[in-house]
Amino acid sequence: MNQRLKKLQSWMKENDVQISFMTSSENVFYLSGFYSDPHERLLALAVFQEEEPFLVCPAMEKHGAKSSGWDHEIIGYSDIDDPWELIFQAINKRMKKVETVAIEKEHMNVERFEALLSIFPNSRMVSAEEKLRKLRMIKDHNELKIIEEACALADYAVEVGVNEIKEGKTELEILSAIEFSLKKKGVTEMSFATMVLTGANAASPHGTPGLTKIKKGDLVLFDLGVVVDRYCSDITRTVAYGDINDKQKEIYDTVLKAQLAAISASKPGTSASAVDLAARNIISKGGYGGYFPHRLGHGLGISVHEYPSMTEKNQLVLKEGMVYTIEPGIYVPEVAGVRIEDDVYVTADGVKVLTKFPKELQIIN
Amino acid sequence: MNQRLKKLQSWMKENDVQISFMTSSENVFYLSGFYSDPHERLLALAVFQEEEPFLVCPAMEKHGAKSSGWDHEIIGYSDIDDPWELIFQAINKRMKKVETVAIEKEHMNVERFEALLSIFPNSRMVSAEEKLRKLRMIKDHNELKIIEEACALADYAVEVGVNEIKEGKTELEILSAIEFSLKKKGVTEMSFATMVLTGANAASPHGTPGLTKIKKGDLVLFDLGVVVDRYCSDITRTVAYGDINDKQKEIYDTVLKAQLAAISASKPGTSASAVDLAARNIISKGGYGGYFPHRLGHGLGISVHEYPSMTEKNQLVLKEGMVYTIEPGIYVPEVAGVRIEDDVYVTADGVKVLTKFPKELQIIN
Repeated sequence: MNQRLKKLQSWMKENDVQISFMTSSENVFYLSGFYSDPHERLLALAVFQEEEPFLVCPAMEKHGAKSSGWDHEIIGYSDIDDPWELIFQAINKRMKKVETVAIEKEHMNVERFEALLSIFPNSRMVSAEEKLRKLRMIKDHNELKIIEEACALADYAVEVGVNEIKEGKTELEILSAIEFSLKKKGVTEMSFATMVLTGANAASPHGTPGLTKIKKGDLVLFDLGVVVDRYCSDITRTVAYGDINDKQKEIYDTVLKAQLAAISASKPGTSASAVDLAARNIISKGGYGGYFPHRLGHGLGISVHEYPSMTEKNQLVLKEGMVYTIEPGIYVPEVAGVRIEDDVYVTADGVKVLTKFPKELQIIN
Repeated sequence: MNQRLKKLQSWMKENDVQISFMTSSENVFYLSGFYSDPHERLLALAVFQEEEPFLVCPAMEKHGAKSSGWDHEIIGYSDIDDPWELIFQAINKRMKKVETVAIEKEHMNVERFEALLSIFPNSRMVSAEEKLRKLRMIKDHNELKIIEEACALADYAVEVGVNEIKEGKTELEILSAIEFSLKKKGVTEMSFATMVLTGANAASPHGTPGLTKIKKGDLVLFDLGVVVDRYCSDITRTVAYGDINDKQKEIYDTVLKAQLAAISASKPGTSASAVDLAARNIISKGGYGGYFPHRLGHGLGISVHEYPSMTEKNQLVLKEGMVYTIEPGIYVPEVAGVRIEDDVYVTADGVKVLTKFPKELQIIN
């Protein structure tokens, strides 16, 4: 039994949960090591307090599940099997009385919920999602290694983008050049839709890359991430194309100062709130408080947005092993949009910054 | 009230459904004209037999909903509102007794289902999905126009890909060149992950583009689609790079003959099954029956896979206005993988083929 399953089992014992029935690709992967996205077909992992866990997947994926290292039972079903009947039998072999089942209520759809209820009509259904979020929040050494690799590719991607900047090129052209370079390195998935924004477009925190052309005096914002072995990175850099005005420079400097302050404030024992505020207070004092409309950052790992949520309100205490983004931004319509984002890993006495592309203002000519 | 809502209301009256509560971006868009993907936030459309329907969306999207043409009530909620409370009030204003609510059971998650049940603890929850699939199956003139535009861009994408073929180029390089060209035309979304497959890779119906290099004597398979105004296209072409052998040619000719036969068989009054079999019988007679492991095609529209499903078993009768793919394929491991796919629209007496890139075997040198 791996450590992750053991931790889930401890939680189940404490909470009188007889079965955890996970169905999201992410949590099944986290707990079993097997990743699959079977679309409308069922993928599930059943975990018990003591009995042997089992995995449920389409028959054709059974081999993949085995070779991913899962050495407990695997139930493969064909298109003519009823997977719920097979699940019922497998559970019935292990236990006769099921009072509480933990599921992913934000992930499971009503159709499957009704199927599960028909197997356990008198069970209480509780959510396992909060527990899984907390387990996934602390990364082990292997996870850190993978995220570092994803961050190195994100650095490379920004470098490619910066080198592509040229008068008259569109956001989408630069974006394509970045993704093309990554594909040549074998990258097949980005953490989210890559953003290359310039001028007025970058001055909105929700801009969409389009046919806007880069021109002298513009800031160019890159926000992107690369997926490596199912783990995400996430980086933002903003650079200047040609000379920018004093206001733009002031905004850049303020964001950078705020970002560095949040990195310095990050260490075990500090709250997420204190880290957010370390950046937010600098931006507010600079007179831009109203132009920083989002949280400081978010945890990342198998999902690009996970725990911890780095908000002004979150009193969660940071611990060694957490990975999150630090990404303050200032967006002044028609003037400038600047965001600087790193991924950091909480160490014993501070953080290790995993994204390494330079942050001092770069002026591209 | 638009025609689509009226049709849904008729179904509700026939089935004693008091409220249809739609929550998927696709069905809300289809019924209201407003598209939004609010991620974890709630988007919903409530439709009644007689009373005014209402839309529920994050407050910041209210303006977008209005300007998309929705001229009924819009309930915008902020991050501190409880949208379910607002929904309860809006329904309570319209009716006091709710016996049956139609939802999307394959889409709605358990968390929302429980919120809905807490508002209507004694209601029966039925699925509206089958009805919506049937409504969406028949395209109107405006939908056809948009799909034609998406198909023209798919043709263009294949043309770009074919022109990129060169000794030693990888699948991913050609794929990137295609998507780059589309981005320059303002395309921001593909129907699904673009496929460029060559050699042994193309000989699997589920190949993934990678670093395989194109070499003389290979077949190169393109499978891609473009999204225009939320509607998808889907095309597959297979071309030869340099001279190919007689076996490869025979396979190509068999697929093409089968594809043309399925087009000829397509007309109102014919079953989906008969169209599938028109192609399948030719492939079987050619001795390749065991190498055509998938259905002939699928409907497409707002989703890239929707009704009608063009299978050997589906007795559904074709009607004017349906749009589907015709995509027979033969995959002989280590020998050849060939698939040819068009999107067609059922007219009064046959079909109009919407994808127009040439299908005669092209030999690229």
